[in-house]
Amino acid sequence: MEETAMRIALDAMGGDYAPHEVVKGAVEAAREEDGDTIILVGQPDRIEAELAGWDLDGLEFPIIAAQQVIDMDEPAAQAIRQKPDSSIVVATQLVKEGQADAVVTAGSTGAAMVAATLLLGRIAGILRPAAAIPYFGIQQETIFLDAGLNVDCKPQYLVQFALMGSIYAQKVMGVENPAVALLSNGTEDSKGNELGRATFPLLRESGLNFIGNVEGLDIPQGRANVIVCDGFTGNVVLKLTEGLIQVLLDLVEAEVGAKLPPAAAATFQPALAELRRRTDYAEIGGAPALGVNGVCVIGHGRSRARAVKSAIAQARLAVRNDLVGAIKEGWQAVAEKTGIEG
Amino acid sequence: MEETAMRIALDAMGGDYAPHEVVKGAVEAAREEDGDTIILVGQPDRIEAELAGWDLDGLEFPIIAAQQVIDMDEPAAQAIRQKPDSSIVVATQLVKEGQADAVVTAGSTGAAMVAATLLLGRIAGILRPAAAIPYFGIQQETIFLDAGLNVDCKPQYLVQFALMGSIYAQKVMGVENPAVALLSNGTEDSKGNELGRATFPLLRESGLNFIGNVEGLDIPQGRANVIVCDGFTGNVVLKLTEGLIQVLLDLVEAEVGAKLPPAAAATFQPALAELRRRTDYAEIGGAPALGVNGVCVIGHGRSRARAVKSAIAQARLAVRNDLVGAIKEGWQAVAEKTGIEG
Repeated sequence: MEETAMRIALDAMGGDYAPHEVVKGAVEAAREEDGDTIILVGQPDRIEAELAGWDLDGLEFPIIAAQQVIDMDEPAAQAIRQKPDSSIVVATQLVKEGQADAVVTAGSTGAAMVAATLLLGRIAGILRPAAAIPYFGIQQETIFLDAGLNVDCKPQYLVQFALMGSIYAQKVMGVENPAVALLSNGTEDSKGNELGRATFPLLRESGLNFIGNVEGLDIPQGRANVIVCDGFTGNVVLKLTEGLIQVLLDLVEAEVGAKLPPAAAATFQPALAELRRRTDYAEIGGAPALGVNGVCVIGHGRSRARAVKSAIAQARLAVRNDLVGAIKEGWQAVAEKTGIEG
Repeated sequence: MEETAMRIALDAMGGDYAPHEVVKGAVEAAREEDGDTIILVGQPDRIEAELAGWDLDGLEFPIIAAQQVIDMDEPAAQAIRQKPDSSIVVATQLVKEGQADAVVTAGSTGAAMVAATLLLGRIAGILRPAAAIPYFGIQQETIFLDAGLNVDCKPQYLVQFALMGSIYAQKVMGVENPAVALLSNGTEDSKGNELGRATFPLLRESGLNFIGNVEGLDIPQGRANVIVCDGFTGNVVLKLTEGLIQVLLDLVEAEVGAKLPPAAAATFQPALAELRRRTDYAEIGGAPALGVNGVCVIGHGRSRARAVKSAIAQARLAVRNDLVGAIKEGWQAVAEKTGIEG
């Protein structure tokens, strides 16, 4: 595919460590692919102050002003309505107007999704956008969705999540023919709650590489590339994983580390810290917002430069490989096979 | 409370390591409380062969014959119907007939629940029995329920789970005034799926010590003593926790352990093994079947002697502290406050 210069609109004010870590991530990302342009959106004086701290070595970062900032805990829909000059709204607007090819933010997930849905709209036929989460660096080729946007789902939503996750796995994660599974309370075909039992036959007909039901333990074991569930369950999976990793690695430190001879601490501590970093969701990069009519990648609120850089890399791949076009086309095929109307 | 001799019916044939580990667990349990009687239910020749391997030192184990065994993967309802002379059916029957005060099994959870529900019936007013799981030795004073029996739930079931879990936490875990929470996708009162949003106000009125919504990460962090959810979500929580602990401790071994100097391995390996053992669900003891009209404790299929002994200890506490009577009485109070009809 021919490479064209790309423009990423980066919400410089989004996230707990913005703008410092966000700008740092932008600089690092730009150093790696200097043909692309990263547009920094936010309060110009603060952004310029951050940029002044780096040796830019010829790199240029256009700045688009946005004076407002949406806090992590503001109710999303209200915040978007009341803050039209917020960095996330302005950055998303750039994509809508064709002045940018993708938006990347580490701000409030809810606000970013509302902005993307309102401004970019949904891909034709897609009923509900969803957020997909790469599985914590533990399984590099496993994502699950919906991670929390749609707490009450219908079977047709889950089929669309499956299609969108499958396309994302192909186009951004580089997985050929991704294995798609339905999260259930057992692996037998007959398992599942009411929603799952109604979704199963549709997935069978979908033309996707549907491998059937998987259980909770199959997520960390990476038994499928795309694991689909409603957003309530997905949120529990996300938060439980995040909490359990922390609690368990704390236990390893307190109960294993403490018993080691002092000389071993010098290797134990950095090795454990590396494992913590690798499995820290905030370090992973971003959750793509799938189903909106444009590329939008949402990093964890605790994103630091490395995660911002990784979210930008995801956005680049999604644009370069035409994620949105592939979802649009893929959905036509699935809709025909399942009879679901978008 | 006056102590009376107690009789526990133990399914000697249930579980992956039966009868060897089950009988061993019975012998160890009996050595600790020799006033009680543990009745071994199963194939007499195999049980006697196991008992012959131990120095019983005056301990006596009545044997009640049951020739059939229900495999772990048999469909539960069908197995119970087709195998009336199975160890789990005969053991549960002893409770029904007043010849035992509790039944303990490490056999199929589904079969044990069906046997308990059919033979013992439900406590007056309780709509759906549920299985409660102690949180993996990570949080000693946290249980969650339902762990998988009722995949589709109504708000009134969840209120009953909350009551039953609360009584269990008091009577068996020794927690005074247990904090009860609803598993949700956020901590705010307005969070939750349709089921959760309908359950929340009922729990507010229930008279229980309801602390509101908790998220997935609050389970390993032990932010409540009793965490209530539908059985679909509960199964995902159970299996995800089990799988993630294994995968994560494997990563600790491969990526932290491997970097240590050889001299440290002698302390690292046993300390990690101890942490694995402590967080292994199979080692914990048992999941009480709550809501059935009798005491029934179901161990993990991989239970070894220590877990069998621990399940017997749970059953003893449940009998001694009149778990069933307390649930019956507790439900009257909650029903009055919430207006839920049993």
